[in-house]
Amino acid sequence: MVKVAIAQAHLQVGDVPGNILETKKLIEQASNQGAQIIVLPELANTGYVFESKEELSKMLEKDNCLEIWQKESKEKKLIIVAGFAQKINNEFFNNSVIIIDGEIKTIQTKNHLWENEKKFFTSGTKIPEIIETKYGKISTMICYDAEFPEYVRNVAEKGCELLCVPLNWPTGAYNKPSSEKRPMELLKMMSMAANNKIWIAICDRTGSERNVDWLQSSALINPDGWPIAEVGPKSGFVIADIELKEAQDKKISPYNDVFKDRRPELYSF
Amino acid sequence: MVKVAIAQAHLQVGDVPGNILETKKLIEQASNQGAQIIVLPELANTGYVFESKEELSKMLEKDNCLEIWQKESKEKKLIIVAGFAQKINNEFFNNSVIIIDGEIKTIQTKNHLWENEKKFFTSGTKIPEIIETKYGKISTMICYDAEFPEYVRNVAEKGCELLCVPLNWPTGAYNKPSSEKRPMELLKMMSMAANNKIWIAICDRTGSERNVDWLQSSALINPDGWPIAEVGPKSGFVIADIELKEAQDKKISPYNDVFKDRRPELYSF
Repeated sequence: MVKVAIAQAHLQVGDVPGNILETKKLIEQASNQGAQIIVLPELANTGYVFESKEELSKMLEKDNCLEIWQKESKEKKLIIVAGFAQKINNEFFNNSVIIIDGEIKTIQTKNHLWENEKKFFTSGTKIPEIIETKYGKISTMICYDAEFPEYVRNVAEKGCELLCVPLNWPTGAYNKPSSEKRPMELLKMMSMAANNKIWIAICDRTGSERNVDWLQSSALINPDGWPIAEVGPKSGFVIADIELKEAQDKKISPYNDVFKDRRPELYSF
Repeated sequence: MVKVAIAQAHLQVGDVPGNILETKKLIEQASNQGAQIIVLPELANTGYVFESKEELSKMLEKDNCLEIWQKESKEKKLIIVAGFAQKINNEFFNNSVIIIDGEIKTIQTKNHLWENEKKFFTSGTKIPEIIETKYGKISTMICYDAEFPEYVRNVAEKGCELLCVPLNWPTGAYNKPSSEKRPMELLKMMSMAANNKIWIAICDRTGSERNVDWLQSSALINPDGWPIAEVGPKSGFVIADIELKEAQDKKISPYNDVFKDRRPELYSF
């Protein structure tokens, strides 16, 4: 078993030291409650609603998020998965990092950019790596990436048991009738988990930014597709004790298996 | 605009004449209320819970479902999409037919067989065809077929605007917490519609068979993924007036398009 925490941080655009402090506080609190894997939101260092590349560039001058997260991860023997903006040469990337016991195991760049992100960020060119941990196999992708079923399928087929998805879900991106309980974004993630029989940890955020609010729909979803832990509309975290290897069982009936039943010869990709 | 009816028929295993009469009655009632496209359940001629191939073979001796549906379709100028069992030489197929004004436009065989179906049916070898109609482009697949996102994606990318899915959803196939309103089967279909921005008409059934009951979750789902018409837990039909060409718009934000945003070079199929 492994205790997974999803830390729905309160972020503020441009306040990089404040945001990193907020993530540090949540990491420490979750660790004190026994968390062994902690998932943080997308762009947890910078916030999300940028006005220009110049502004984003200036924000990142003071950035030391990786250093702080590595220190926390090493001291507390944690796996931390977190989204962060990064500048390399003159390009900006919307990334997610997996850190184990202080060591950066992979940095994954967002491959499917949402809306204004296309103005600021360069999209990735790499399929997410599967990272072996003592608890099981994990991987990461970022927000809109996880809305592409063929992309999530790839990662699941490569053996991912827990997919950690830092995200920022602005409200109003999808039309939701008021009678519906859950946003379509979350229903899509539930369906992705069920389609592939994997665990999915999605971490959203709080903190209004320049008239943008967030769905605050962070959840840990089980391989049947059901959320077993949700943070709700507030800042903070939730922890659940789960068995990653349950995601190795792809059977959904005595004669059905979500992978073996595939008919790739009929899928014209 | 086109009026689409989903006819959640009451079926009984082995009573082929009775089942065909039930579908005829629903077709006539829906047509009287203005329906122009009518979707019926999977295996609407035979029912579902067979004991043996011999039993299934005997059932099909009296089968004239295609003839009856063609006659109804021609007389009432209807598009009928219906599931039916068919025997060809010594093989059995779980099929769906699209009939327009009396003419059979396509017969699609189920490619992903569920549970005991593997004992009775030969799976298909053909990707669903896209059928041009005066209302827009439609296609069909059967039940578990539609749980494979890469398969639904293919059909959507080939231009399908309304995907008609005859199905029989046995209860208990997926674990559903009692606090959840909708079964995972339906959530998956909603997600498929939203992922591809297409209309999906799913037609379930009623009528207990050999201790198997049904979810009775027939629904017409819009390209945002929300059910706009549901039959509910009873026999009967629901009609909704929809514009198929709305499914041509794949935009989900000013800068996002569910097809154009795909990164096939990163999908290793």
